[in-house]
Amino acid sequence: MHYTKEQIEKMERVKRLKIINAVSGIKPANLIGTISNDGMTNLAIFSSVVHLGSDPALMGFIMRPVGDVPRHTYDNILQNGSYTINHVHQSFVKNAHYTSAKLQKEESEFSRCALTEEYVDGFKAPFVEESYLKMGLKFVEAIDIPINGTILMIGEIHHLILPEYSIGDHKDIDLSSMDTVGISGLNSYYSLHKINEFPYVRVSEMPDFA
Amino acid sequence: MHYTKEQIEKMERVKRLKIINAVSGIKPANLIGTISNDGMTNLAIFSSVVHLGSDPALMGFIMRPVGDVPRHTYDNILQNGSYTINHVHQSFVKNAHYTSAKLQKEESEFSRCALTEEYVDGFKAPFVEESYLKMGLKFVEAIDIPINGTILMIGEIHHLILPEYSIGDHKDIDLSSMDTVGISGLNSYYSLHKINEFPYVRVSEMPDFA
Repeated sequence: MHYTKEQIEKMERVKRLKIINAVSGIKPANLIGTISNDGMTNLAIFSSVVHLGSDPALMGFIMRPVGDVPRHTYDNILQNGSYTINHVHQSFVKNAHYTSAKLQKEESEFSRCALTEEYVDGFKAPFVEESYLKMGLKFVEAIDIPINGTILMIGEIHHLILPEYSIGDHKDIDLSSMDTVGISGLNSYYSLHKINEFPYVRVSEMPDFA
Repeated sequence: MHYTKEQIEKMERVKRLKIINAVSGIKPANLIGTISNDGMTNLAIFSSVVHLGSDPALMGFIMRPVGDVPRHTYDNILQNGSYTINHVHQSFVKNAHYTSAKLQKEESEFSRCALTEEYVDGFKAPFVEESYLKMGLKFVEAIDIPINGTILMIGEIHHLILPEYSIGDHKDIDLSSMDTVGISGLNSYYSLHKINEFPYVRVSEMPDFA
């Protein structure tokens, strides 16, 4: 099938939403934990976390336009500058998915979705106890994306917590060992199975594909 | 294991690169195809493609700092504003990985890695014939990320090509049906297996997790 720009624009809205959300390929499944200055916690699933750099260790994620609906994650990050990113594993995929409910600010997704708040080393934002790989980040910058009003939220990793068994011989993290999952589109979840590991590519060591 | 910001900063460089590149979770595996105005093609693997919006249909990807080394993808996109994003499938993971070689501008990764250029409907940039799901994009905007010199490259989908069998009953795209792969860190590849599909969440329809 071949859709042109014009055909994509004319597509029924929900169909377009589902298809265009899926065409980038597999997306990471992460729960972002925050807390307001008056102590109300929030937890929300995001599929847009992206690596921005290792030194300093920076992560980004895309925030949908602020204004039309309440964005508790955004508000809390601006209030106190701290948030956590927690991997979603197979054992709590359903709980994680339902954090996308538009709950009132007075109700926390942690309790409503039966996930456990965990506090680490005086870091303000709550981690997800059920998650094996989690990071505590300090907010660095929000970069506006004018064309559609989305925002690239950037933070630096201040705490990185992960199981020793997840780090393999070559210092690669094995996502399968933790049953970390991926997302496609808006509501499909995938398990991950390692199939290949290749070396850093040097031109002089390239295989002959001919 | 628990690493603080200070411990991450002191980590051996390659270890840090591998770990921090992996902690965001699974990443999509895409080949970006471009062509210079003098007709030289380029193909490069990227793990940072991110959905930015569906209407208009916008995709972003992160470009590492320009200046220190040649960035043929970036140069070609600025020259003529067109590029393609092509899913990597299990059948050509190794070919795709080796497009990260720093080849001279005069040598195309298409021929060196035995992947086939495909041209569609007069669209300037080359698609990857071996890929089942591919998009032709027109460059919209480059947004600088000052803190580390990376660039968020934004484009709009003008052509979307995908197999009919990949679109499921609920208009979700089934990544397993195409053997699309994911990346962790710098050089590990994962196969994807669909495990769950949940509805769009309405508060009134939430399950009772208690």
